[in-house]
Amino acid sequence: MTKARRGAGTFITFEGIDGSGKSTQLKHLAAHLRACGHDVVETREPGGSPGAEEIRALVLQGEPDRWSAETELLLFTAARRDHLERLIEPALRAGKIVLCDRFADSTRMYQGLSRGDLRGKVDKLHALMIGREPDLTLLIDMDPATGLARALSRRTADERFEAFGEDLQVAMRAGFLDLAREFPKRFRVIDGARAVDVVAAEIAQLVDAELA
Amino acid sequence: MTKARRGAGTFITFEGIDGSGKSTQLKHLAAHLRACGHDVVETREPGGSPGAEEIRALVLQGEPDRWSAETELLLFTAARRDHLERLIEPALRAGKIVLCDRFADSTRMYQGLSRGDLRGKVDKLHALMIGREPDLTLLIDMDPATGLARALSRRTADERFEAFGEDLQVAMRAGFLDLAREFPKRFRVIDGARAVDVVAAEIAQLVDAELA
Repeated sequence: MTKARRGAGTFITFEGIDGSGKSTQLKHLAAHLRACGHDVVETREPGGSPGAEEIRALVLQGEPDRWSAETELLLFTAARRDHLERLIEPALRAGKIVLCDRFADSTRMYQGLSRGDLRGKVDKLHALMIGREPDLTLLIDMDPATGLARALSRRTADERFEAFGEDLQVAMRAGFLDLAREFPKRFRVIDGARAVDVVAAEIAQLVDAELA
Repeated sequence: MTKARRGAGTFITFEGIDGSGKSTQLKHLAAHLRACGHDVVETREPGGSPGAEEIRALVLQGEPDRWSAETELLLFTAARRDHLERLIEPALRAGKIVLCDRFADSTRMYQGLSRGDLRGKVDKLHALMIGREPDLTLLIDMDPATGLARALSRRTADERFEAFGEDLQVAMRAGFLDLAREFPKRFRVIDGARAVDVVAAEIAQLVDAELA
């Protein structure tokens, strides 16, 4: 990550399997960066802007087979486009640090891998309609059995994406690690199995170094 | 149009500016084809399947600038994908004739021309996620002043796409005629300014000949 690539602000995404602790770590990093005087925006996908949240609701409600993998991919890409135009890009132009819980890498995994082999379509659609990559992606790596137990303990009725079994979590973990190797410049792999404050301290140190 | 290209069924779309009479003509053709013993499905876009109708409602409700042209394009493509998978393709596989009021050519016009110059993106997105073209497209050509007067007389509150001025209708008419020249094999241009039953008789004769 370089200042030149970043433009005015900095776009940092958190990725990982369900239960990896990425949402918790995002909150810790936001608090740390604010304490250092940065202007921070916390957001998440799918959703993140009013329009994108409406699309999210449309996708996540109802039966699991309500939408095909391809239709779901298009809906999530529409939501991402709205989120990017209405929230992320304006915040970056204003010099803010944007922390986003999941972004296009999650689509590369969930639509590209778990719902049929759509990775080629995912990449082409991203290049055509989104184009933007994060400046820095923090992959919170986690043993799937531990992650799944954490995810199930806080699962809500409408979050059907959490209702995956352990085999899929194993494939997802491997897939995320493959992505980190595919995009080594922006990915950092964090061992999420340690205590929350230990992980948070490592992330804070890593991001401080990148922002320096 | 050839039997080989058609597969089992026949996919016929109606296109034209608002007020051109295409919806009325679609109903007349459906009645004629049923009288001849064909199994006919009537549908429309945006919408046409339960999921696509929900996406349609999401797009068409609210302020005109609620979605950017790009987000709108993605949402309509998601709706089309659902409509194609759940209604059009199964009907064609069952040997039916599908009559659809607007399809991808309307997107080429409305998102490709009237909301910024997105035609390049529209074409790439269509190739990537839809791929299917109609076997036959009936373009009901109409003087824009006449079409606009007809459209305004039956305009409903949520149909904000009808709320275009005459300048835009003129550009749309020219754009549709350009499309007919771009895809001469499947397009037929019908003079919609004549009496409804005269137009309907011409269309019935033309389609009978294509199906023979």
